[in-house]
Amino acid sequence: MEINNNYKLLIASTSTVHGSGYLEYIIDNAVRFLGVDEIIFIPYARPSGVTYDDYTEAPRKAFFAKGIRVKGLHEFNNPKEALLNAKAIFTGGGNTFLLLKTLYELDLISTLREVIGKGIPYMGSSAGSNITGLTIGTTNDMPIVYPPSFEALEFLPFNLNPHYLDPDPNSTHKGETRETRIKEFHKFNSQPVLGLREGSWLEVQNGNIELKGNLTARLFQQGKEAVEIENGLLIIG
Amino acid sequence: MEINNNYKLLIASTSTVHGSGYLEYIIDNAVRFLGVDEIIFIPYARPSGVTYDDYTEAPRKAFFAKGIRVKGLHEFNNPKEALLNAKAIFTGGGNTFLLLKTLYELDLISTLREVIGKGIPYMGSSAGSNITGLTIGTTNDMPIVYPPSFEALEFLPFNLNPHYLDPDPNSTHKGETRETRIKEFHKFNSQPVLGLREGSWLEVQNGNIELKGNLTARLFQQGKEAVEIENGLLIIG
Repeated sequence: MEINNNYKLLIASTSTVHGSGYLEYIIDNAVRFLGVDEIIFIPYARPSGVTYDDYTEAPRKAFFAKGIRVKGLHEFNNPKEALLNAKAIFTGGGNTFLLLKTLYELDLISTLREVIGKGIPYMGSSAGSNITGLTIGTTNDMPIVYPPSFEALEFLPFNLNPHYLDPDPNSTHKGETRETRIKEFHKFNSQPVLGLREGSWLEVQNGNIELKGNLTARLFQQGKEAVEIENGLLIIG
Repeated sequence: MEINNNYKLLIASTSTVHGSGYLEYIIDNAVRFLGVDEIIFIPYARPSGVTYDDYTEAPRKAFFAKGIRVKGLHEFNNPKEALLNAKAIFTGGGNTFLLLKTLYELDLISTLREVIGKGIPYMGSSAGSNITGLTIGTTNDMPIVYPPSFEALEFLPFNLNPHYLDPDPNSTHKGETRETRIKEFHKFNSQPVLGLREGSWLEVQNGNIELKGNLTARLFQQGKEAVEIENGLLIIG
């Protein structure tokens, strides 16, 4: 599978791992990878429905401690222009349906494709990572709003499942496991799905995709048994 | 809230509870409640992507043991006509997006509203229950296909969350809890949401809604604290 050589993406399963603060586990790596002194934050996924201002405080504090300014995209009168002038972009987690719907409503999907296609670094966590795949058809989120499409940014030639969870062998619950859901997805969709566990992330640059963090990831391909992917370069398809 | 006096609905959180067979915990009640010798089964939710034929075998066996015939809706050349002539209808669980999309594609939403509005008994489990609410905006399922709308059958004046799960106080996972997701829903939607735990069901008749099973249910209303609802008549709003 071909990846645009210009893409410079850091795609994290989660913003926060158990027992540490917001972005704490990944902040040094993010600072190094993004390599800028100013980031535009896209707060549209609004976890728990918080305001854009409140949400933007979290990354602002995390990056401020590293000498990097964060501006919320909602602070600009013209978000399209703001993205076109961004040094780097970070999209936070929350609800993927809400995030994608808002990006469509503001006509920012094509803008993001243009900007990221030119090599501006992009970081995503959770919902902000989900939208870098082909569609949001493998999100874990509740469909609290109806987006005009499930088609996403298509930076990656597959779908993501952030916060990937292994089946709990002791569960008595009859709801579907994550693996069952992804297998259902593959009855109706052909693209691979990468399950990224909390603490894992992808680094995409120079046309390569690398799995980072100390965990394996789980790769689901239509018509094949799911496999565990080790850290390092990812070759899919 | 007003409920159509003609409605005769059995709305179950799940088809199966831990440690027992398909419908086993509810079959005697279902037989009594539906009061018919033949049921049309809607298999469109296709759990794990099984075929319509394979899926229909599960309710066929469960009801056959009670002397009731089950026909799959997919066995009819004209599903609309089949529903219009049904003695009772049962919609099974699986993927709610797939179920709703298929019902829209076959133009069966208005047909179901017409038939159930005339007093034909309807039973649903999981996804088949989800669609009896106002929208599918509080489903737990993965959006594996894109339906033309999230608007559902609107038999109930609220939304359902089947397989409702209480937050696990010992979890280290950073994905949202069910309660967090439903609270997010209420930032953007005003209708109440009833969380039905596995083993609970609603019986709707004579304009009343009754909570059955041995569990409480959790009622979420916009701008209010969630409350536990005891078994018995449900008064919402």
